[in-house]
Amino acid sequence: MGLNPKRTVAELKELRELTGDANGAQRVAWTDTWMKARGWFQSKIARLPVEHHYDAAGNNWVTLPGSSAKSLLLGGHLDSVPNGGWLDGCLDALAALEVLRRFSEEYAGRPPVTIRVVDWADEEGARFGRSLLGSSAFAGTHSIAADRVRLDKDAISLETALARCGVDIDRFPEAGKERENAAAYLELHIEQGPVLEQMGLPLGTVLGTKGVERHAVTFFGQEAHSGSTPMKARRDALAPASKLALEIRKIAGKHADAVCTIGSLKTFPGIVTAVVGRAEATLDQRDLDPAVLSQMFAEARSASECFAAEENCTVEWSRIWNIEPVPFHPALIDLCDEAVKETAGRSHQLPSGPLHDAAEVARAGIPTVMMFVQSLKGISHNKIEDTLEEHIELSVVALDRLATKTAEWIQREEG
Amino acid sequence: MGLNPKRTVAELKELRELTGDANGAQRVAWTDTWMKARGWFQSKIARLPVEHHYDAAGNNWVTLPGSSAKSLLLGGHLDSVPNGGWLDGCLDALAALEVLRRFSEEYAGRPPVTIRVVDWADEEGARFGRSLLGSSAFAGTHSIAADRVRLDKDAISLETALARCGVDIDRFPEAGKERENAAAYLELHIEQGPVLEQMGLPLGTVLGTKGVERHAVTFFGQEAHSGSTPMKARRDALAPASKLALEIRKIAGKHADAVCTIGSLKTFPGIVTAVVGRAEATLDQRDLDPAVLSQMFAEARSASECFAAEENCTVEWSRIWNIEPVPFHPALIDLCDEAVKETAGRSHQLPSGPLHDAAEVARAGIPTVMMFVQSLKGISHNKIEDTLEEHIELSVVALDRLATKTAEWIQREEG
Repeated sequence: MGLNPKRTVAELKELRELTGDANGAQRVAWTDTWMKARGWFQSKIARLPVEHHYDAAGNNWVTLPGSSAKSLLLGGHLDSVPNGGWLDGCLDALAALEVLRRFSEEYAGRPPVTIRVVDWADEEGARFGRSLLGSSAFAGTHSIAADRVRLDKDAISLETALARCGVDIDRFPEAGKERENAAAYLELHIEQGPVLEQMGLPLGTVLGTKGVERHAVTFFGQEAHSGSTPMKARRDALAPASKLALEIRKIAGKHADAVCTIGSLKTFPGIVTAVVGRAEATLDQRDLDPAVLSQMFAEARSASECFAAEENCTVEWSRIWNIEPVPFHPALIDLCDEAVKETAGRSHQLPSGPLHDAAEVARAGIPTVMMFVQSLKGISHNKIEDTLEEHIELSVVALDRLATKTAEWIQREEG
Repeated sequence: MGLNPKRTVAELKELRELTGDANGAQRVAWTDTWMKARGWFQSKIARLPVEHHYDAAGNNWVTLPGSSAKSLLLGGHLDSVPNGGWLDGCLDALAALEVLRRFSEEYAGRPPVTIRVVDWADEEGARFGRSLLGSSAFAGTHSIAADRVRLDKDAISLETALARCGVDIDRFPEAGKERENAAAYLELHIEQGPVLEQMGLPLGTVLGTKGVERHAVTFFGQEAHSGSTPMKARRDALAPASKLALEIRKIAGKHADAVCTIGSLKTFPGIVTAVVGRAEATLDQRDLDPAVLSQMFAEARSASECFAAEENCTVEWSRIWNIEPVPFHPALIDLCDEAVKETAGRSHQLPSGPLHDAAEVARAGIPTVMMFVQSLKGISHNKIEDTLEEHIELSVVALDRLATKTAEWIQREEG
């Protein structure tokens, strides 16, 4: 019967029924519900001519061996945030499974290149605050020492939680051997943003994942009585913070896809009768171009210092986290664009603001590309996360086309 | 020996020793430490020819009967905030006591008008969040129903705490009879702001207490992912809030003594990876002129609506609290200015941003004025609250001069 995108939609609903509740998806990694989801996924491959195993980091590999050992990897993740949506991660995994089924059927169990579906372990980092855990073990970019001691809200360590699922964190480096023969990696994902919906497009090609500069920016003024302190005598820390909140929009606005966000602003002492003595902001800046990212960081820092001086305040910066931009593979970007156009008529190329396992795979030097399918209202990590079923079906078709093109590309590259 | 301002300084230090600790003054109303302070104050009047009683609201009245029943009232409060300063409230009470002593000595126990010192109960409202409690009972502006059920942090009710000190809240209205024959009210206080220090003046004349408009201003935008939401697609609630934080300075700046403060700004969900969906600000606006106050309120409200519309957000206002401006008595303001000039060479007239018991007395229709003495660095409600000892002594001298002038004014008015 060939590719059956309606089956993917049906399986997504089946998984939602099995592992969600009134508040949304509950497949948090290293919990019983996640293990149940993985068991269910396992049942779906029972009658396929595939090899299956969990690697040393708990990533789930399903391999359909081909004439060539060179492998086309198709990835996703079954884990979700608490109260998550029905598509984030599992669409990718189930669409990948559908593509593997089609290859298996078309080539009578022996496609020209090896097809591997991977369900990455703990993409979300929802329980321990460590995203992309399994894929970073695969890529060799993780740190056992830093990850081992992470605690969940009940003070259970990551090491303990993994051990309960049969995963020994000290063996994480062994997951790296899955990179052998990996010739390309494809990942379909919901956009989790509003761009494709606003353009009226079902599908898009992802150029890479944006780099992130994330800082705590704290302004120091002088706490004072709001009744007795004249305006001109104040050193109000909220003033430079407000100026920065407005300025970062201009800084981002100079670049097509750049974003700058102050997501949290806290005032101290934070009472109605006191001028703000200290204002603590978090600044998150993202772009696909490292030069743009570093320019935006420098401009924000310089602006903050200027505003602090204007207001007779001081400012301190401290880096919370950063990651470099990860561009995807030019040839695969072209193939993805072709597949999207053939399926949906038009394509749009866009960077991904959120991180994905694909970034870790690309950092490991494996040619990688992602495809986005439209998100309704751009909402994700929420039970109302949704995508039109006709778009889900289109995305499975487009991923399948991309997989065919990529398999041919692998053969050409090998040739 | 006449007026002895050095005795006031010495008594302030004695009280600090008795009722403070390493963190500052601990004379929170309705606590044992406050009762101890009141007992100590009692010991200071033991050998004076005065009548003494606590009124039905716990205000402490010390009366030196004069030839006329018409009374000059001199007030202060011994209660403090937790970890408070050594001057706020008790300077007023002890300077008043010193002035009463001088009248008693000069007129051999029988001054021309009656002199009354009052130590108001619970000016600070530090324990139950209800400022000016005793003076509002005196003025008849309190609400038994609203006050009775107030709870402290240990869930003890105001009614219970008062009963423990022998005060029955249902008898509060009886405190109103202390208004009989009250012809004028004087209160000395530390400025608690930086104005006099910046002008190099030890003393100033207070024009009245500013009215206050206090509102919660909440902007509603749309929470969104900081990585996947383009700048132009955002409805960032922090943007109009930031604009308002900057605009209120212009709104206040049009008027000489007006102040506008956003003391608290909270962002929701308030995480580094989310565009702010809701921003909650508190706005406190103060001025002595009711027309200025209402203009500032209208301008801030209008600006907030304009900024919300610009940012595709909405805004809601809700009043937290308000009080009208309370101007002091023109004749007493003139007398205070004279007394200050005769004592310190120069005077400055300024409104009080913080509220004081004097506002309640003035609202009861009793001619009232306050005198400010310079605060170092404008800091109060803190153990580092301080005033130069030479300025404290000057303030006692000036209060005494003002009392003499006011007693004469009462006699003239009485005709």
